[in-house]
Amino acid sequence: MYSFKNDYSEGAHPSILQALVDTNYVQAPGYGEDPYCEEAAQLLKKEAQTQEGDVHFIAGGTLTNLLVISSFLRPHEAVISADSGHIYTHETGAIEATGHKILTRAPRDGKIYPDQIEDIMEEHYFEHMVKPKLVYISQPTEMGTLYSRSELLDIHHYCQAKGLYLFVDGARLGSALASSHNDVTLKDLAEYSDAFYFGGTKNGALLGEALFLSHPGVREEFRYLIKQRGAMLAKGRIIGLQFLTLFQNNLYLELAEHANKMASKLQEQINQLGYSMQFTSYTNQIFPIFPLPVIEKMEKEFEFFRWEKIDDQNWSIRLVCSWATPKEEIDRFIECLKG
Amino acid sequence: MYSFKNDYSEGAHPSILQALVDTNYVQAPGYGEDPYCEEAAQLLKKEAQTQEGDVHFIAGGTLTNLLVISSFLRPHEAVISADSGHIYTHETGAIEATGHKILTRAPRDGKIYPDQIEDIMEEHYFEHMVKPKLVYISQPTEMGTLYSRSELLDIHHYCQAKGLYLFVDGARLGSALASSHNDVTLKDLAEYSDAFYFGGTKNGALLGEALFLSHPGVREEFRYLIKQRGAMLAKGRIIGLQFLTLFQNNLYLELAEHANKMASKLQEQINQLGYSMQFTSYTNQIFPIFPLPVIEKMEKEFEFFRWEKIDDQNWSIRLVCSWATPKEEIDRFIECLKG
Amino acid sequence: MYSFKNDYSEGAHPSILQALVDTNYVQAPGYGEDPYCEEAAQLLKKEAQTQEGDVHFIAGGTLTNLLVISSFLRPHEAVISADSGHIYTHETGAIEATGHKILTRAPRDGKIYPDQIEDIMEEHYFEHMVKPKLVYISQPTEMGTLYSRSELLDIHHYCQAKGLYLFVDGARLGSALASSHNDVTLKDLAEYSDAFYFGGTKNGALLGEALFLSHPGVREEFRYLIKQRGAMLAKGRIIGLQFLTLFQNNLYLELAEHANKMASKLQEQINQLGYSMQFTSYTNQIFPIFPLPVIEKMEKEFEFFRWEKIDDQNWSIRLVCSWATPKEEIDRFIECLKG
Amino acid sequence: MYSFKNDYSEGAHPSILQALVDTNYVQAPGYGEDPYCEEAAQLLKKEAQTQEGDVHFIAGGTLTNLLVISSFLRPHEAVISADSGHIYTHETGAIEATGHKILTRAPRDGKIYPDQIEDIMEEHYFEHMVKPKLVYISQPTEMGTLYSRSELLDIHHYCQAKGLYLFVDGARLGSALASSHNDVTLKDLAEYSDAFYFGGTKNGALLGEALFLSHPGVREEFRYLIKQRGAMLAKGRIIGLQFLTLFQNNLYLELAEHANKMASKLQEQINQLGYSMQFTSYTNQIFPIFPLPVIEKMEKEFEFFRWEKIDDQNWSIRLVCSWATPKEEIDRFIECLKG
Repeated sequence: MYSFKNDYSEGAHPSILQALVDTNYVQAPGYGEDPYCEEAAQLLKKEAQTQEGDVHFIAGGTLTNLLVISSFLRPHEAVISADSGHIYTHETGAIEATGHKILTRAPRDGKIYPDQIEDIMEEHYFEHMVKPKLVYISQPTEMGTLYSRSELLDIHHYCQAKGLYLFVDGARLGSALASSHNDVTLKDLAEYSDAFYFGGTKNGALLGEALFLSHPGVREEFRYLIKQRGAMLAKGRIIGLQFLTLFQNNLYLELAEHANKMASKLQEQINQLGYSMQFTSYTNQIFPIFPLPVIEKMEKEFEFFRWEKIDDQNWSIRLVCSWATPKEEIDRFIECLKG
Repeated sequence: MYSFKNDYSEGAHPSILQALVDTNYVQAPGYGEDPYCEEAAQLLKKEAQTQEGDVHFIAGGTLTNLLVISSFLRPHEAVISADSGHIYTHETGAIEATGHKILTRAPRDGKIYPDQIEDIMEEHYFEHMVKPKLVYISQPTEMGTLYSRSELLDIHHYCQAKGLYLFVDGARLGSALASSHNDVTLKDLAEYSDAFYFGGTKNGALLGEALFLSHPGVREEFRYLIKQRGAMLAKGRIIGLQFLTLFQNNLYLELAEHANKMASKLQEQINQLGYSMQFTSYTNQIFPIFPLPVIEKMEKEFEFFRWEKIDDQNWSIRLVCSWATPKEEIDRFIECLKG
Repeated sequence: MYSFKNDYSEGAHPSILQALVDTNYVQAPGYGEDPYCEEAAQLLKKEAQTQEGDVHFIAGGTLTNLLVISSFLRPHEAVISADSGHIYTHETGAIEATGHKILTRAPRDGKIYPDQIEDIMEEHYFEHMVKPKLVYISQPTEMGTLYSRSELLDIHHYCQAKGLYLFVDGARLGSALASSHNDVTLKDLAEYSDAFYFGGTKNGALLGEALFLSHPGVREEFRYLIKQRGAMLAKGRIIGLQFLTLFQNNLYLELAEHANKMASKLQEQINQLGYSMQFTSYTNQIFPIFPLPVIEKMEKEFEFFRWEKIDDQNWSIRLVCSWATPKEEIDRFIECLKG
Repeated sequence: MYSFKNDYSEGAHPSILQALVDTNYVQAPGYGEDPYCEEAAQLLKKEAQTQEGDVHFIAGGTLTNLLVISSFLRPHEAVISADSGHIYTHETGAIEATGHKILTRAPRDGKIYPDQIEDIMEEHYFEHMVKPKLVYISQPTEMGTLYSRSELLDIHHYCQAKGLYLFVDGARLGSALASSHNDVTLKDLAEYSDAFYFGGTKNGALLGEALFLSHPGVREEFRYLIKQRGAMLAKGRIIGLQFLTLFQNNLYLELAEHANKMASKLQEQINQLGYSMQFTSYTNQIFPIFPLPVIEKMEKEFEFFRWEKIDDQNWSIRLVCSWATPKEEIDRFIECLKG
C-alpha cells in the first residue's frame, strides 16, 4: 500500500541525516544561537538578495502561523484569509486561541484577491467590529495553485495603501519556487511581504520552518515571542542544520522539482485517461476527479484523501508527491487506474 | 573550550540517529499516529506498569508545560510552584500567556512542600482571588535535587485531599531515575501525578518530550489541544522513534547514568579540593561555590553559567554533564582547577 | 429630530430611578451580594418556575456573552451561531479574544436550525479542526423574529443528543416575552437552555443583564469568572435593584408591551401605505423597505439606521421602539411618510 | 449595625441621582458618544490643564485595569507592581487572564520605588524571561498612603529613561486629591503618566471610572479595545453624566474631603485612646491596630475588615469612610471603643 496522502510520510533526505551525523558531537549553543542557524539564515537572506530582515527557525507550521500572527496584531485586529486557508480550516482554532478573528472569502482558484480584501475592509468600518489588519495567503495555495508575481504585487500594493500587513505561509514554498509556472522569487517575497516562511517539513527535512521577518516593528524582541509560544527548541541547531543542507547547492530546489515532476506526470497521465482535475496544479499536489467505483478500486492499492464531493457520482481526491516519491509508484498508479 | 553549560550542547546518541536512518524510507501516518509513537507509548506504559493513561509526544518542554497546564485549568484557576520553577522563571511568561497566574513560595532545597502549598491555599479563599488548582513540581528540581517517594506521596495526598491536580515536569527525568539517591519510579509518577513528562532533549534525543496523562478529564480530546497549541509535528514519528530507541534496552538509563556519574565525579573531586556546593545534587547538574578569581580562571578553558552570587567574594556556578560528556573533560576541569 | 435608532436612547423608567432614590442611603454589601440582587434573583426564578439555577447580574451584553461562552468552553471548543449573531458581527471579536472560534451559517428569517447545526457538526470531525460545543441563539433575533417553542425544543433536543450547550442571548428578551406571537416562556428558557439572559438595558433599565445559569458544571465558582472578566460591579446593588423593580408587578412586561405596540403600529401603518418589510417582526424592531428618496426625506426628521441595500433603488431601514417611545412620534413618522 | 467596610456601601450622591432624573427623557447617542460624556471629558481635561489626551468612561476598576494594561503590552511584556497592588491580589487574575505576568516587590509604606523597579529590570535581562514594560501604581495606595509629587516624578523619570509605561490606578483618586497631605495634581498625573483613571464608584457615583490616556500609541483605536472587553455601556451617558455632576463645582472634592475628614477624625481619636496605626493614612481609609477582644467587641456594633494579623494578640483592621459617612457614626465608634 503506497501512500499519496501527503509529503511528510517519510523521514528526511539522506543528506540531511548525514549532516546530523557529521556534526553530532560538535558542541553548540542552544535555542537557535548556533553557527548552523546563523549560516542557514545568511544563505536564505542571500537567496532573497537582502541584507535586511531576520530569519528564525521554528518547529512547525501551525506554531509559526500562530506566533507570527499574534505578534503582529493588537487585540482588536483581525486576519483576512481565503476560507480554504490552513489557519482557518485545519489548525484547531490556533489563531482564535491567540485572540484574533479570521475574516474570510471563498477563494478563486485557491487564491484571494484585492477586490475580496476590499470587500472585507468595507464591511468592517467601526469600533463595534474587529479591524482587519493582516492578510494571510499561502504560496502555493491549499489547492496547489500559485500566485503570480503580478498578483502578489497587487496584494502588496493594496496592503500598503491600506496599512495592512502581508504574511505568506510557505509550508510548501519549495514546491512553488520549483514550479515551471512560478515567477515569484524569494526576493519578491522578502520585498513584498512583511513576513513569510519556507517550509522544511514538506521539502525533505525532519521538521522545521524558516521564518523571514521583514517588518521592523515585529522583528524587535521577536525571540521573546518565540520562547513564550514554546516555539524555541533547545537544540535549535537541528533545524538550522537542516536548512543549511537544503540551501546548499540548491538541494531544496532539486527535491521540490522531483516532487513537482512526479505530480505533473501523474496529472498528465490521468488527464490522458480522460479524467479532469478540480484545480490545475503546477506544484506537488493534484486533484483529479474520479467516479466513486474508481476511487474505491484505487483505495485498495493506494492511500490518499478524498477531497470534495463533486456530484452524486464523482469525488475529487488529493494526490501528493514528495522528494521521496518513486517514479515506479506513479507508473503503478496509472496502471492500476487503467486496469 | 569545552562547555558544561547544559545537557543539550550536542546532537543525539548515535543509536537514535541510526534509527532515523534505518526507518527513513518507511512511509508512516503523520501527526503522531504512526507505529513508532504507538510502540514507544506502549514501552513507557510498560515501564510505568500501567494500562491506563495516554502518552503523547511533544516537541519541547515549554510547549508541554503550557499545553498541559492550560488544558487542566478553567480560566480562574492558578498554578502553585516553587519560585525557582522553570515555568515561573525561564519561559517568558508562557503560562500567564495562556491566562493563568502562578503562585509561588521559595523552595527548600529546590523543593516545595505541602505546608507551603497549604499556606497558598489558605491565602486564596474567595472569588476576588484566583483559585489555586494545580501543583507543578520538577523531578529533578532546577537545583538538581530529588523528591523522595515519601515526599511525592505527601504532596499527592495533600493534592487529593484538596482537589488539586499534580503535574510533574520531568525535563531531566532520566537523570532522576538513574540517580543513586532516587526512589521514585515511573510507576509512582503514573500513579501519584495527574500528568508528568519524560524529557528526551536532555537525555540524548534531538528533541521531544514524552507526556503521560493519567487524569481522565484532561485525556479526553487532548489531541485537539496539542494541535491548537502548535505542538503536533507533521512528522511526529521522529519523536516516537527516538523514545522507542531510548526505551529499548533501557538506553535512556544508560545515558542518564553516564551523565550522573560524570557530574558526581566532578562534584566529589571539587569537594576534595576543599570547595563546597550550594546544593548537594545526585543528578547531572552540580553547583560548586568558587571565589571569583577561580571562576575567571576556569572561564578561560570552560563554558558554564554563573548561577548565584553567594557573597562579595564567591559565586556558585552550574556545571551540567550529559550522555556525551567525555571523562577526559572532567579530568581536565579538575586539573585546571588545581593548577 | 426624534430617534428610532435604538431602544437605549433614553435613561430609565421613572420607577427605577425612584427605587434608586428610595434605597440610596441603605448600606448594602458590595459585588452583588446585597438583598436587592438576592430578591431580584428569587423573582426571576419564580417567573421561571424553578428552584434550580443561579442568577447573576452583569453590567452589559457583550460582557455577559464573553463571560458565559468562555466559562463553558475548553480551549479547543467553538461556538455555533447564525452569521447575523451579535457575537459574530458587533462585538469587536470579543469571543475570539477569549480564544474561541465562532462557526456560522446564514440564518433563515434570522434563525438557525438543527439542520444547519448538524451541517457544522459534520464538517468538524477531527482534531485538526475546532470542536463545536455551544450553540448561541438570540431571542428575539437581530431581525426581530422569534423562535417558537417548538423550534426551541428542536434545538434543545439536538443539543442534548450531541452534547452541545445551548445559550440564549436575551438582550431584548422582554420584547420577545411581551410579543403577541411568542409562545416561549421563561420556564422554557430555564428548562431548555444551559444559560440565558434577560436584558435590562433595552427594557427600561439604566444598565444590566440578568443571567440565568442552569448547567451545574458552569454554575460552580462562576463568581470567580465574573470577577476575573471585570464584570462584577462594586455597587452590584444598582443592577439588582433595577431588576427587582422590573420584575415587580410585571413592569418589564408592561414596558416591553408598549415598545412592541408602538413598533407594531408603525409596521401596520407603513404596510398600509404600500411598503413592504424585509422581515416580519412581532417585537420592537421593524425593517421597512423604502426607496432612497423616501429614506432621505425621512432622515431630515428622524434618526434611524439604514440596514441593508435591497436593490439599486431600495434599502431597508431599522426602526426601534422602546418603553419611552411616544405615540405622537409614531403618528408624526407616518404623517411625514405620507407627506 | 453600621458598616465601615468600604466606600461603596451606599448608592450615589443625591446630585447625581437628580441629574439622572433631570436628563432622563433626553435622547442621546449610545456607547459613550453622547454630549454628557463629551462635556465631562472636557471638564476633566480642563482640571488637568491639558488639551491632549483622551478620556473614556468605563464601568468598573478591574475592567479598566485589564483593558488598559492589555492595550499597552505586547504578548511578552509584563507589569511591575507592589505585591499589595489591587491587580495582583484582588482581581482574580484578571491581568494574567489577558496574558501578562505581574512582577512584584513588597511595598514600603504601600508604595513602590525606582530602586525596586530597577531591581526587577535587572533580574529580567533576556528572552527566556518576560520583559517588564509597564509600572502600575495606585494613588492613593491600598494602604491609604500617597505618592508625593517628587516620588511620582522619580518614577516618571525612571520610566522615561527605561522605556517603561506608567499607569496610575486612581480608584480612590478623589480621596488623594482632597487629602491635606497631597501635592500631586491632575495636571501632574496627565503629564507624568501614560494613563490614569479617576474612580467614580468610591467617590459618590453609582458606578464608573474616568480613564485618561495620554500615550499616543495606545489612544489610537482605543474604543475598539473598550468594546472588545465588554467595557462599553450602551447607555454610556449614565457614566458621563455622573462625572459631569462630580466635576461641576468640584463636587468630587467636596465629597472626598468629607470622607477624608471623617477618617482623619476617627484616626485621631483612636490614636488619642492609645492605639497605633499600621500605616499612617491621610485619605479615607485607616488601619488601627487593636487587641482581639477589642475587635470582637467592635464587631458587635460595626462592620469592617480584619486586615492583617500583627502578632498573637493584635490585628489591624480597615475602616473606610465615604461621602455618606455620618459624623454620628464616628462618634458612636469612639464611644463604643472607649466603653
